[in-house]
Amino acid sequence: ARNGVPEVVFGEGKQADQISAIVGRLIARHQRALVTRLDAERAERVLRDHPHGHYDPISRLLCWGAPPRRLPGTVAVICAGTSDLPVAEESAGTLEWLGADVARLNDVGVAGIDRLLAHRESLTRADVLIVIAGMEGALPSVVTGLVRNPVIAVPTSVGYGASLQGVTALLGMLSACATGMSVVNIDNGFGAAWQAASILSLLERGPDPRPASFEGSASTAPTSQTQASTEPRTS
Amino acid sequence: ARNGVPEVVFGEGKQADQISAIVGRLIARHQRALVTRLDAERAERVLRDHPHGHYDPISRLLCWGAPPRRLPGTVAVICAGTSDLPVAEESAGTLEWLGADVARLNDVGVAGIDRLLAHRESLTRADVLIVIAGMEGALPSVVTGLVRNPVIAVPTSVGYGASLQGVTALLGMLSACATGMSVVNIDNGFGAAWQAASILSLLERGPDPRPASFEGSASTAPTSQTQASTEPRTS
Amino acid sequence: ARNGVPEVVFGEGKQADQISAIVGRLIARHQRALVTRLDAERAERVLRDHPHGHYDPISRLLCWGAPPRRLPGTVAVICAGTSDLPVAEESAGTLEWLGADVARLNDVGVAGIDRLLAHRESLTRADVLIVIAGMEGALPSVVTGLVRNPVIAVPTSVGYGASLQGVTALLGMLSACATGMSVVNIDNGFGAAWQAASILSLLERGPDPRPASFEGSASTAPTSQTQASTEPRTS
Amino acid sequence: ARNGVPEVVFGEGKQADQISAIVGRLIARHQRALVTRLDAERAERVLRDHPHGHYDPISRLLCWGAPPRRLPGTVAVICAGTSDLPVAEESAGTLEWLGADVARLNDVGVAGIDRLLAHRESLTRADVLIVIAGMEGALPSVVTGLVRNPVIAVPTSVGYGASLQGVTALLGMLSACATGMSVVNIDNGFGAAWQAASILSLLERGPDPRPASFEGSASTAPTSQTQASTEPRTS
Amino acid sequence: ARNGVPEVVFGEGKQADQISAIVGRLIARHQRALVTRLDAERAERVLRDHPHGHYDPISRLLCWGAPPRRLPGTVAVICAGTSDLPVAEESAGTLEWLGADVARLNDVGVAGIDRLLAHRESLTRADVLIVIAGMEGALPSVVTGLVRNPVIAVPTSVGYGASLQGVTALLGMLSACATGMSVVNIDNGFGAAWQAASILSLLERGPDPRPASFEGSASTAPTSQTQASTEPRTS
Amino acid sequence: ARNGVPEVVFGEGKQADQISAIVGRLIARHQRALVTRLDAERAERVLRDHPHGHYDPISRLLCWGAPPRRLPGTVAVICAGTSDLPVAEESAGTLEWLGADVARLNDVGVAGIDRLLAHRESLTRADVLIVIAGMEGALPSVVTGLVRNPVIAVPTSVGYGASLQGVTALLGMLSACATGMSVVNIDNGFGAAWQAASILSLLERGPDPRPASFEGSASTAPTSQTQASTEPRTS
Amino acid sequence: ARNGVPEVVFGEGKQADQISAIVGRLIARHQRALVTRLDAERAERVLRDHPHGHYDPISRLLCWGAPPRRLPGTVAVICAGTSDLPVAEESAGTLEWLGADVARLNDVGVAGIDRLLAHRESLTRADVLIVIAGMEGALPSVVTGLVRNPVIAVPTSVGYGASLQGVTALLGMLSACATGMSVVNIDNGFGAAWQAASILSLLERGPDPRPASFEGSASTAPTSQTQASTEPRTS
Amino acid sequence: ARNGVPEVVFGEGKQADQISAIVGRLIARHQRALVTRLDAERAERVLRDHPHGHYDPISRLLCWGAPPRRLPGTVAVICAGTSDLPVAEESAGTLEWLGADVARLNDVGVAGIDRLLAHRESLTRADVLIVIAGMEGALPSVVTGLVRNPVIAVPTSVGYGASLQGVTALLGMLSACATGMSVVNIDNGFGAAWQAASILSLLERGPDPRPASFEGSASTAPTSQTQASTEPRTS
Ligand SMILES: Nc1ncnc2c1ncn2[C@@H]1O[C@H](COP(=O)(O)O)[C@@H](O)[C@H]1O
Ligand SMILES: Nc1ncnc2c1ncn2[C@@H]1O[C@H](COP(=O)(O)O)[C@@H](O)[C@H]1O
Ligand SMILES: Nc1ncnc2c1ncn2[C@@H]1O[C@H](COP(=O)(O)O)[C@@H](O)[C@H]1O
Ligand SMILES: Nc1ncnc2c1ncn2[C@@H]1O[C@H](COP(=O)(O)O)[C@@H](O)[C@H]1O
Ligand SMILES: [Mg+2]
Ligand SMILES: [Mg+2]
Ligand SMILES: [Mg+2]
Ligand SMILES: [Mg+2]
Ligand SMILES: [Mg+2]
Ligand SMILES: [Mg+2]
Ligand SMILES: [Mg+2]
Ligand SMILES: [Mg+2]
Repeated sequence: ARNGVPEVVFGEGKQADQISAIVGRLIARHQRALVTRLDAERAERVLRDHPHGHYDPISRLLCWGAPPRRLPGTVAVICAGTSDLPVAEESAGTLEWLGADVARLNDVGVAGIDRLLAHRESLTRADVLIVIAGMEGALPSVVTGLVRNPVIAVPTSVGYGASLQGVTALLGMLSACATGMSVVNIDNGFGAAWQAASILSLLERGPDPRPASFEGSASTAPTSQTQASTEPRTS
Repeated sequence: ARNGVPEVVFGEGKQADQISAIVGRLIARHQRALVTRLDAERAERVLRDHPHGHYDPISRLLCWGAPPRRLPGTVAVICAGTSDLPVAEESAGTLEWLGADVARLNDVGVAGIDRLLAHRESLTRADVLIVIAGMEGALPSVVTGLVRNPVIAVPTSVGYGASLQGVTALLGMLSACATGMSVVNIDNGFGAAWQAASILSLLERGPDPRPASFEGSASTAPTSQTQASTEPRTS
Repeated sequence: ARNGVPEVVFGEGKQADQISAIVGRLIARHQRALVTRLDAERAERVLRDHPHGHYDPISRLLCWGAPPRRLPGTVAVICAGTSDLPVAEESAGTLEWLGADVARLNDVGVAGIDRLLAHRESLTRADVLIVIAGMEGALPSVVTGLVRNPVIAVPTSVGYGASLQGVTALLGMLSACATGMSVVNIDNGFGAAWQAASILSLLERGPDPRPASFEGSASTAPTSQTQASTEPRTS
Repeated sequence: ARNGVPEVVFGEGKQADQISAIVGRLIARHQRALVTRLDAERAERVLRDHPHGHYDPISRLLCWGAPPRRLPGTVAVICAGTSDLPVAEESAGTLEWLGADVARLNDVGVAGIDRLLAHRESLTRADVLIVIAGMEGALPSVVTGLVRNPVIAVPTSVGYGASLQGVTALLGMLSACATGMSVVNIDNGFGAAWQAASILSLLERGPDPRPASFEGSASTAPTSQTQASTEPRTS
Repeated sequence: ARNGVPEVVFGEGKQADQISAIVGRLIARHQRALVTRLDAERAERVLRDHPHGHYDPISRLLCWGAPPRRLPGTVAVICAGTSDLPVAEESAGTLEWLGADVARLNDVGVAGIDRLLAHRESLTRADVLIVIAGMEGALPSVVTGLVRNPVIAVPTSVGYGASLQGVTALLGMLSACATGMSVVNIDNGFGAAWQAASILSLLERGPDPRPASFEGSASTAPTSQTQASTEPRTS
Repeated sequence: ARNGVPEVVFGEGKQADQISAIVGRLIARHQRALVTRLDAERAERVLRDHPHGHYDPISRLLCWGAPPRRLPGTVAVICAGTSDLPVAEESAGTLEWLGADVARLNDVGVAGIDRLLAHRESLTRADVLIVIAGMEGALPSVVTGLVRNPVIAVPTSVGYGASLQGVTALLGMLSACATGMSVVNIDNGFGAAWQAASILSLLERGPDPRPASFEGSASTAPTSQTQASTEPRTS
Repeated sequence: ARNGVPEVVFGEGKQADQISAIVGRLIARHQRALVTRLDAERAERVLRDHPHGHYDPISRLLCWGAPPRRLPGTVAVICAGTSDLPVAEESAGTLEWLGADVARLNDVGVAGIDRLLAHRESLTRADVLIVIAGMEGALPSVVTGLVRNPVIAVPTSVGYGASLQGVTALLGMLSACATGMSVVNIDNGFGAAWQAASILSLLERGPDPRPASFEGSASTAPTSQTQASTEPRTS
Repeated sequence: ARNGVPEVVFGEGKQADQISAIVGRLIARHQRALVTRLDAERAERVLRDHPHGHYDPISRLLCWGAPPRRLPGTVAVICAGTSDLPVAEESAGTLEWLGADVARLNDVGVAGIDRLLAHRESLTRADVLIVIAGMEGALPSVVTGLVRNPVIAVPTSVGYGASLQGVTALLGMLSACATGMSVVNIDNGFGAAWQAASILSLLERGPDPRPASFEGSASTAPTSQTQASTEPRTS
C-alpha cells in the first residue's frame, strides 16, 4: 500500500464469491475495501459475507470502512446530463472513499449554457475538476476555459447513432481546443477520481524535497538533433 | 492573463507575417511569447522582426522572455524512443517557458525495461510525470505502476501500419490497466505540459480557502435514482 | 419556454416513475407534454398516472395536450421503406404535437423511382421536407434534386452488414451531391422534426426587424488573410 | 434555373480552361457565375478570359455578377477559430452572391465562452445561423442552445490527431444534445450557405398556398403497424 | 412483374401477420411467393394461413409455388465452411425458386486447398459461380483464378475478433487480386442469387437486338479532357 | 491464355522499363497488350520502345492491337459526374480492347434524376450495365431499379470529408436496396469491365453443355442442419 | 493426419448432436479429440454420448485421450490479468492435449512490473512464450524484451470503451517496438498454442535434411528491380 | 548482445549523419551492422563514412559484416506479387545478415494457384515460412494449409481502395481459418525475419535443459474459477 490505499476491485466479470474472498483479505489487512461496477444482486450476496459495507445503486460502488484522513482541497464533479449520473457518481463515490471532499454539479450540458454559468464562481474555487459528458462531449472544453485548475474529462457511452458508444465524445475531448485538460477512458469515472486524488495527495505532501533528476544517465535530452543518436544497444 | 501567462500561438497553418503581428502584440503586453509547431524557415522570418527570441529545431518552439518566477516541484518528461523526441521537447520546452523545472529521460521503451528501471528511484521523486510513446504506447502504463504522482500520457504518431498514425497508442493509453494517469491528444506535448504546469501552479497556491460548493443549486447529486429526475426545462 | 414549447422528455434509459414525475410537472406548467423513445410497457405505466395522453406504438411517442396554435405551411415526411416507418412517425408525430401540418409519403425507395416520381408535383409544394432512409440512404439526394425548399435528411439504422447500423446512410447523406439538404443523427426523427418546425416558426414570425450584426466587435470578418490575425488573448 | 440561380461550379479537380468554358456559358445565359474551391493560380487564368469577376483568396471563391434581388432576413456566419475562416468565408461569400445579408462573427470558440456570450443578443436576431468549428466541434451545440432559429452546423478539417481530419467534429455535431440544428459535410461551407439561402427564399415566398398532400396515394401513413404492409410490387 | 418474378419479401423485422397479408396478395397475383430471413416460429404462423408452402430452417427461406420455367445453365454455389451454410443455402434456395439449376459444393476452405482442387473440372463447367466465405474471405480469389465464367463473392459474418462481423471478408474480397469477380453485401446470399439469375436470364434471351446507345445525348463520352466540360445546368 | 486474352499489366508502381519488358513479351506472344493506371510520362517512354500503341490520358490506358473478334451485346458505362470520368473511361477502354461494344452515358447523377430518366428506354437495352459514382454512390441503386439486366457498380474516390476516399460510396452500394447489382473495388473500372466482358463471353458461348455437378463429392449440400456436420479432416 | 494430430472441432455455433457425431468419428479414428469454445451445457450433452472425456469450464475445452508422446521443451503461458484466464487456459489446455509441457504465469500485468520481473530468470528458460493481454496489450512487448526465444502474443477482448473489444490490444501488439514476437487473432488462445506446438514439433524433428529450394523456378528473387519483371502470364 | 546480434537500426526518419554515428559505434563493437528502411541517397552518404557495406535498393537494407556462423535449417520467403518484393527482400536480406539460409519464391498469388502448387513439395521442406501478401492477403492461409512447419504472415500495404493501406490484408491474415500461422505488422518484413531467426536459433540450441517453471509463485494457474481470485495487491 504505497499510499496506504488498498487496491480497488474491478467488479465487472467477477463472481460474487470471488469478490467476497478478495474483499475478505482486503478488510483483514486494511479495514476497508472498494468494489466498482457491481450490480445490486451480486452486491447483496457479497454484503451477506461482509455486512458492514454500503452499496450505492447509481454508482454501482460497494465499499467498507472510512478513509484514514481527509485529503486537502475539493474536487468538483460536474456532469452534462442525467444519463451521465452513474459515471459521475462512480467518480464522486470513489473520491469520498479516498478521503476527498466532493462538490457535485449535475445536468449542466452546454446546450443550456446558463445553468453552467450560474456556478461560474464556484467552479473556479474547485482545486481539481472532473467533467463528464456523453454525446458530443463538449462540456469539458467550456469548463476548462472558465477555470485555471486542472480538468480531467470523462467521456460517457451515453447517446446513440453517431455517438458510437462514447467514441465520439472521447475523440472530441482529446481534440478540444481548451488547454489544461486531459482525458480518461469512456465511462471511467473511477480512473478520473483516482487521478484527481493523486493531485490532492501531491498537494498534501508538497513538492518532493529531492527534485527528480536523470543526470548522469546516458539518456538525458540532446542539445541538438545530431547529438540525439542513441547509444547502440545490443540484444 | 488569468495566470499571468500570455496565450500561446499555435504556429501550424499560420503565415510568418501573421505570427509576427500576433507576437508583436504579445511581447508589447507581456514581455514574452511562445509559438509552437513552427518550422525553421518561418521561425527565421519571425525572428527577423522580433530578434531576441530563441528557436529550437527539435521541439519547433520559438519563444521570447523568461518566466516571471519558478514553479515549485519538478516535471519528469520521459519518452520511449528517439523518434518521440520532438514531442518530448515540445513538452519540456513549454514547461521551461512556463517556469517549471524539467527532468528529461529519453529512449526508455518497454522492450528494454531495464533502462527504465535503472531510474526507478528518480521517477518516484518527480512531482508530475509526462510519459510519451508511439507504436503500442505501453510506456505510461509501466511508469504509472512505478509511481504515485500524477502521470500525463502523450501518444505520438511514430510508427507505421497498425500504428495508425498514433491512434493505436492513443487507444492503448486510454485502455491502460494502470490507474493514476490521463491522456492528451496525439503528439500534443504542449497540452501535457500545460496540464502539468497547472498542477504545479495549484501546488504553489495550495488548496482554495473557500471550498467549491454548488449547494443551494437545484442540480446537486440525487440521493437515489428516483430523485434524479431533472426539473423540466423549457426552451 | 422561449417558444412556448415545453421541453421534450427523452424516454430511453429513464424509468416509468422518473418520467411520470417529470411529465407531472410539465403538464402542471404547460398543459401538455411529449415523451419520445418509450416502449409500450412503460408508456402504460406513465398513462396510469397521467391518463389523458395518447401513446403511438410505431413512433413510440407518448403525448398530452394540443398545440396552442397551428404553424403555417406543410412538412412532407417521406421515407424509403416500411422498416423506416418508426423513424418517420417519430418525425410526423413530433411535428403534429408542435402544431405543424404533415404530409406523409412512405415506401418510395430509389430502387423503384417511379413510385417517388408519381408524387413529384406534391413534393414541390411541401415547405420543408424530411427525408428518411436506411441502407445506402440515397433517397434525400433524389428528393433534394426535385425540389427547391429545404430538405432535412434522416439516416436510419435499417439494414445489415455494410450498412453499419446506419453509419453508411449517414455518411452517404453527408457526401450527397445534391445541394440544399442537411443531416441529423441516425434515427433522429425527433431532431429533424424540431428543425423543420423551427423553420415554420420563422416563416410565421417573418425575418427579424432588427437585422443581426456583430459590428463593433473585434471579431468581424477580415478583408484579407494578413489582417485575420486574432487579437492576442491571455488566460 | 428553378430559382433563377445558375448552377455553381465545383472548382476542385477541374482545369482552368474547363472552368473557363463552363463559366462562359453560365455568364452568357445568367449574366453571373460562381466557382468554389479555386486556388489563386487557376482563378487568375480564368479571370483572363472573363475579366469582370472577383476572386477572394480566403474563401477561394471566384464570382461574376450581382444577385438579381436581396433575400429577406440575415444569416449569421459564426466560426470557432482563425483556422476555420476559409470555410466561414466560403459560406459568407456564397450567401452574398445569392443575395443574402450576412453577419460575421469569428474566433468565438467554446474555450473562451465569454467572447461568444458578448454577442448573445445579436445571435438571437439572426434568422438563420451557420456555425462552423473544427477539433471537438462544440460551438454549434452552445449556439443552438442560445437561439430559437434554425442552426446549420459545419464541421471543419481543422485539428490534428484525434480530430481525424474533421470526422470527430462531424460526429460530435451529429451527436449534439442541442435540438434545432442539422449538419452538412466537413468543410462544406458552400452547402450550409445554400441551405440557409433556401430557408430565406422560403421566407420570401411564404408557405405554398396549395399544401403538400399525398392523399389518394397508396403510400400514406399506416394507422397501425399491422396496416403498414407494403403493396406487393413486382419487378 | 418485369421478369414475371414476384417481389421477394424481406422477412427480418416484419411480424407474421404482416408477412401473411403480403404473401396472400402475392400468391393471388403470381401463384407463388418467397420470404427470406424468417425464423421457424414466424414461418409456422405464416404457413397456417398459406399452407402449401415449404420452409427450410437452414436457409430460413419460406416459399410457395414452382418457377414457370427453368433457366438455362447451372450456378455453382460454393462455400468455405460449415458455418457459411445458411448463407449458401439462401443463395441456392433462391436460385431454385427462380428456376435455376444449382450445383452445391461445401466446406472447401482455402486452408485445405486439395478439397477444392478435386472439383476443378466441375468448377469450370458452372456458368455462374457464387462463392461464399467468412473470416479472411480468400476462397473467391482462388476460385476466380480457376475459372473464366463470372464469379459473385459473398462475404459472411462468420468469424470473431479481427473478422469484424464480416467486414474483413468483405474488404478482402473487394481487394482481391483475381479479376472477374464482384461482391455483394455481408451474408447477402439472396442478392448474389438474384444477380446470378439475371445473368442466366440474359443467357436465355440473348443479347438485345436493339443495341443500347445514348447517341444524340449531350452526355456521351468526351474525346478529350478539355471537351469534357458539362453543359451548365441550372436549378 | 484461357480466353485468348493476354494478362493485363497493372501500371501503378512499375517503372517504364519494367513495363516495356513485359509488354514486349506480351506483344511477341499475343500481338496485343494493355497497361492500366499509367501516367502520360511513363506511357510516352514505353511507346518509344513499342510505338504502335495508343495512350488515352483520361483513362490512363495504354494499349496495342485489336481484339481478335467482337463480343455479342452492348455494355452501358454510366457515370454520375464529370469527376468520375477517368474511372468510366478505364471501364470503357478496357471493354473496347476486349472486343465489347460500349454505350457511354455521363454526368447523370441522382440529384438531377431527369437527365438519367431521359435515357430510360436505352438503359433497358444494355445487356450489362457498369454504373460508376462517387460521393454517396446512389446512382447504381436507381439504375438497377430501372433495368432487369445485371448491373456492376463501381464506387469512386471522388468527394471530400464524409466521402472517406470512396469508402462511403462503396459501403452505400453494398447496402443498396436494389437487387440485381454487385460491386467492385473503389475506382476499379478495369475490374468491372472484365466482369462485364466475362458475362458477354458467356453469352457468346452459351451455357456449358455439361452442367456443373459436384455429385459424388462428400461436400454437397446437407438436407438438414444435423447432417451438415463435416467429415472430420485431419492435418 | 499430417502430424498424427486429429483436426480440432471449433465448438462455437455448432449444436451438441453435430459435435457428438464429429467427435464420434474422430475418436474412432484417432482415439482422441478436442472441442474448443464449448459451454458447459452442450459439453454435458456431448459427454453423455462420449463419456470418457474431460471438460474444463474456464478454458471451455472438452477433450478425450492422451497425446501419443510428449513434445520437447516447455511453453510459458503468461497472462496479464485474471480476466484473461479463459484465453490463457484455452492455450494451456490445447498445448497439454498436444503433448507439450506448460508453465503458467498469471496476473502479471505491466502496471505492476515487479510481479513479472520476479520471474525473469524462469521466463528466459521457456522455449516458446505465449503472452496474453487485453486492454492496452502491453505485456508481450515487455516480455519479448526480456527473452530471446520466440513470443506469440494473444490480444484479448477484455476491457471497455477505448479497448474496442480487443482491437486496441491487437493493434498495439502489432505495432510493438519489441522484435521477436508475432500475433494471432483476438482471444485466439487455441491458435497461439498450435503455433507454439508447431515450433516444438520442429524442435523434435530438427531441421529438414533436404533444404527447401525453389531453384529452377522462374520465380526466384531478382538481383535488381529492373530484372524483377514477371514473366507475362496469360489467362 | 544477448544473442551476439547487434541492435538493428531503423532508418526511417533518421538523418544520414545520425545513422553514420550509430553505425560507427556498432561496427566498432560488433564488426557488423544493419540499417533498414533506407533510401539510396542516405545510404550513399552513410557508405561514404563506412565504405565496406552493401546497399540493396529493393529491400532498402544497408549492411556491413558477415554473420559469425550459419543458423541451421532454411526459411522460405514467399510473396504473392511483384509489388510485394520490397517487403520480401527486407525479410530475406535480414535473414541472410542473421546467418539464415533463405529460399525465395515470388509472384505466387492465390489467383493463379497452380504457380504455388508447383512448389508444393519444396514448401514442406522449409523449416519456417514467411508468407507475404497485400490486397486480400489470402496467400498465408493457403500455404499454412499445405505445410506443418510454422508460418509467419506479413501483410503489405500494396493495393488500393478497400485494401486500406494493408489493414485489410492484416485483418484477413488474423482472421484466417488456417491454424499454425501468426502475423506481424504491415510491411514488417524485418520483424518476420527476426521471429523466424529466433526459431532457427532455438533449433540450434535445442530445448532449455532447465524447463521453465513458475511453481512456488502465487500466480500459477487456478484449478477452478473460484480459486482464480487474485491476491489483493496494494498500491
Ligand atoms: N502545439 C499545440 N497543440 C495544441 N494546442 C496548442 C498548441 N500550441 C498552442 N495551442 C493552443 O492553441 C490556442 C491558440 O491557437 P491560435 O489562436 O490558433 O494560435 C491556445 O489555446 C493555445 O493554448
Ligand atoms: N464547395 C462545394 N462543395 C460542395 N458542393 C459544391 C461546391 N461547389 C459547387 N458544388 C455543387 O457541385 C455541383 C457542380 O459540380 P460540377 O458539375 O462538378 O461543377 C453543383 O451541384 C453545386 O451545387
Ligand atoms: N487497374 C487495375 N485494377 C485492378 N487490377 C488490375 C488493373 N490492371 C491490371 N490488373 C490486374 O492485375 C494483374 C496484373 O498485375 P501485375 O502482375 O502487377 O501487372 C492482372 O491480374 C490484372 O488483371
Ligand atoms: N524495418 C523495421 N521494422 C520494425 N522494426 C525495426 C526495423 N528495423 C529496425 N527495427 C527495430 O527498431 C529498433 C531500433 O530502433 P531505433 O533505435 O529507432 O533505430 C530495434 O529494436 C530494431 O529491432
Ligand atoms: Mg483552464
Ligand atoms: Mg501510480
Ligand atoms: Mg433542391
Ligand atoms: Mg435553439
Ligand atoms: Mg477467372
Ligand atoms: Mg433491376
Ligand atoms: Mg526478445
Ligand atoms: Mg500447416
